[in-house]
Amino acid sequence: MAKANTSRAEDYSQWYIDIVKKPQLADNSAGRGGMVIKPYGYAIWEKMRDQLDRMFKETGHVNAYFPLFIPKSFLSKEAEHVEGFAKECAVVTHHRLMADPNGGGLIVDPSAKLEEELVVRPTSETIIWNTYRDWIKSYRDLPLLINQWANVVRWEMRTRLFLRTTEFLWQEGHTAHATRQEAVEEARRMQEVYAQFAEEYMAMPVIQGYKSPNERFAGAEDTLTIEALMQDGKALQAGTSHFLGQNFAKAFEVVFLNEENQQELVWATSWGVSTRLVGGLIMTHSDDEGLIVPPKLAPTQVVIVPIPKPNPEFGEVAEKIMRSLRERGISVKYDQDMKNRPGFKFAEYEMKGIPVRIAFGQRDLENNQLEVARRDTKEKTSVPIDGIAAYVENLLKDIQDNLFNRALEYRNSHITRVDNFADFQQVLKEKGGFISAHWDGTTETELKIKEQTKATIRCIPHNLDMEDGVCVLTGKPSKHRVLFAMAY
Amino acid sequence: MAKANTSRAEDYSQWYIDIVKKPQLADNSAGRGGMVIKPYGYAIWEKMRDQLDRMFKETGHVNAYFPLFIPKSFLSKEAEHVEGFAKECAVVTHHRLMADPNGGGLIVDPSAKLEEELVVRPTSETIIWNTYRDWIKSYRDLPLLINQWANVVRWEMRTRLFLRTTEFLWQEGHTAHATRQEAVEEARRMQEVYAQFAEEYMAMPVIQGYKSPNERFAGAEDTLTIEALMQDGKALQAGTSHFLGQNFAKAFEVVFLNEENQQELVWATSWGVSTRLVGGLIMTHSDDEGLIVPPKLAPTQVVIVPIPKPNPEFGEVAEKIMRSLRERGISVKYDQDMKNRPGFKFAEYEMKGIPVRIAFGQRDLENNQLEVARRDTKEKTSVPIDGIAAYVENLLKDIQDNLFNRALEYRNSHITRVDNFADFQQVLKEKGGFISAHWDGTTETELKIKEQTKATIRCIPHNLDMEDGVCVLTGKPSKHRVLFAMAY
Repeated sequence: MAKANTSRAEDYSQWYIDIVKKPQLADNSAGRGGMVIKPYGYAIWEKMRDQLDRMFKETGHVNAYFPLFIPKSFLSKEAEHVEGFAKECAVVTHHRLMADPNGGGLIVDPSAKLEEELVVRPTSETIIWNTYRDWIKSYRDLPLLINQWANVVRWEMRTRLFLRTTEFLWQEGHTAHATRQEAVEEARRMQEVYAQFAEEYMAMPVIQGYKSPNERFAGAEDTLTIEALMQDGKALQAGTSHFLGQNFAKAFEVVFLNEENQQELVWATSWGVSTRLVGGLIMTHSDDEGLIVPPKLAPTQVVIVPIPKPNPEFGEVAEKIMRSLRERGISVKYDQDMKNRPGFKFAEYEMKGIPVRIAFGQRDLENNQLEVARRDTKEKTSVPIDGIAAYVENLLKDIQDNLFNRALEYRNSHITRVDNFADFQQVLKEKGGFISAHWDGTTETELKIKEQTKATIRCIPHNLDMEDGVCVLTGKPSKHRVLFAMAY
Repeated sequence: MAKANTSRAEDYSQWYIDIVKKPQLADNSAGRGGMVIKPYGYAIWEKMRDQLDRMFKETGHVNAYFPLFIPKSFLSKEAEHVEGFAKECAVVTHHRLMADPNGGGLIVDPSAKLEEELVVRPTSETIIWNTYRDWIKSYRDLPLLINQWANVVRWEMRTRLFLRTTEFLWQEGHTAHATRQEAVEEARRMQEVYAQFAEEYMAMPVIQGYKSPNERFAGAEDTLTIEALMQDGKALQAGTSHFLGQNFAKAFEVVFLNEENQQELVWATSWGVSTRLVGGLIMTHSDDEGLIVPPKLAPTQVVIVPIPKPNPEFGEVAEKIMRSLRERGISVKYDQDMKNRPGFKFAEYEMKGIPVRIAFGQRDLENNQLEVARRDTKEKTSVPIDGIAAYVENLLKDIQDNLFNRALEYRNSHITRVDNFADFQQVLKEKGGFISAHWDGTTETELKIKEQTKATIRCIPHNLDMEDGVCVLTGKPSKHRVLFAMAY
């Protein structure tokens, strides 16, 4: 396995592709915008999924599964929703193929045309709320706190591995509540869960806020978001949580009898994160030598490399080290390959982002020590064999913290306050990152800024200071700053 | 929640529907043959999935994810495969909807027609082998042992919840090997894993064997199967493992350089089980009072019901019991509901198939005892509070064993040897179950028997005795018996 040929400074986009492909995370597939998630990439996604699943269950949610196909008419029922998704959905029109009677191979059987076309779910609000109508009769049936792990399809024009693919894997929570306040709190709670996951597990700092009307989810009254900053100064929307009001209850006639025995429309939320997070993970931490995976999400946390190559005595030492690490819940692999040289192996494990590498040769064993290298800083240390497990356990924690702090420092140093449009354009062009600026609150101005700069409002942070000012573009009055950025 | 109104004797099909719907396992959904897997049904599937996933990983497999959409032309590449699947697949022909210019609502945008239609995967051999062509270059890349958890779509004409639905969830293993023997062994190994899972976890005895050519997977050289027997005397194909020979390697030109540096075609297997297993679980164990879930797959293994209703003192006792059970890894729930009466609750938990129910009232506590009821036999016993955890732990094991033994006894008493066609028809009609009979080995005879009796060859068991005889239909010579049955 070769090193990543492309450095970030040279060509960030190509670097990203290298970091996805060379450590075998994913690959392009046949068919437009298709992606194969390879075993190593999938193992990282599994770690993410399992942790998120635990957090959803701890907050009272259960999993269920709803159909892939949505009858076309369902999509039309919520006016804004259909507007948002109709233009980019895969449509199933037939249910059979046949041999071409003219010998042209396999063709669609015209007699197998569906009465009503089916849309491959781009998101499941419509089919789920159509189902909830039967499930919810009384306030006793509420709240309904359901999550689904699934694949969805959005026909994207430009695709990029993990970040934007025609099909992607995700989870979508869909909850139903008796009151507005309960639904608002649920949307906020799940935003908080996402932020905690991003920061504690992905070591990826995020800003929590809400979207401007123009950037809201199609059909939502309010969209909450966690926004991360990638190393190239572009923002990544890493997860969203929507307060849907009564829009879907109205569209699908989902009502319940309240405690006073009166009929009311149900309140809703939905929230989701996807395999896009793997892209975010890559672009938060990795370097020119390859991928860096935070220890809490690393499928293999430690690799042991014998120098110059495996032999029975080394094998026994490795076994002992592995046992002591595994007792502490650390995942570890011993490299038994006889063919490749240590230098090659070191480069390979750096490429794969294994957090800790332990190497030893004959002389190390004579001195009763091991060489321990950390992937984040590439520092090497000699460590006594006795106590290696405790050392590594601490080191993994330290790496996790260091990755977060490093990313936080970068992110914080890339939030720039600007007060006029010339500065806005200059900062965007020369420095990138988030721009904290006043905005007059209109979609019109937001779209003009986007047209002129490609920057969008990423969010209106929750913890903003109220501060009078004037809009960076129009000079109209503004009560607080919002965060702009170029975004993935 | 009402009892299942329908007994098995009355109407087995309706009983099955009741057992799926009343304990809230699943429901029909909008759209033909669609199913919503409800939280309780999904929780059982999750337990199955997690255990199977562990067993796949222990046998050296890793997970990956391949695209949902298969270009139509891929399906055509393996002649038998396309024959098997073209007639029942969902076809995506367009990628956009639009507002009807004539005001007729949402229509398919004719300008968004795909150049090549996409098939929603009915199984993934074709897209995976198209990918393996890039992954496999040399014998060093082999074996490739990959599994995928995914949804698939087969346009079935008659559907039945869990057993046969248009979309279902499953896992599909796809492995690539350097030699025929290794692939043959892999297919056999995974059949063994399935059998072990079925018997140890589902408590569902299975017969391992191979399929007759007529019942083989489309594109396989050999299909291994595990066959279970349902309570109504019909067989259920519970899992299959296919030796694919070099068919897909040929179709997708997947070659490797062997150790002698010569090009060879790669050998393949594929194997899968699906949410159909939930249907098998139901029909192996459940009774007229409702579902019975084997302890190893029960999302909740024990429920505690206070009599007549919860109070603070009862709550403390329940807490203590729950702690002691959880320490042993037993999942337990305390019923805090104030509204419903114990009798209602008992019926509800029976309906849901919770393996063990613990009930107590004031007098029980005075006597320092609890009433423990097991779901499988409905026996009740008074058990001292001290030592309840050990008692329940043993009881759960006993229930698991009893369910298996009960099903095994039923299955074994429903394998009937017959030696002429009159007996064949009579046994099939009056007793059901497996019929062990001689068959002349031709597809022609197999199809004739199917036409006349609806019975098919379920499998040719691995552990069969060679025994000369004559075909039950044609009188032609036969070397061994095979198993016929009506099947789901």
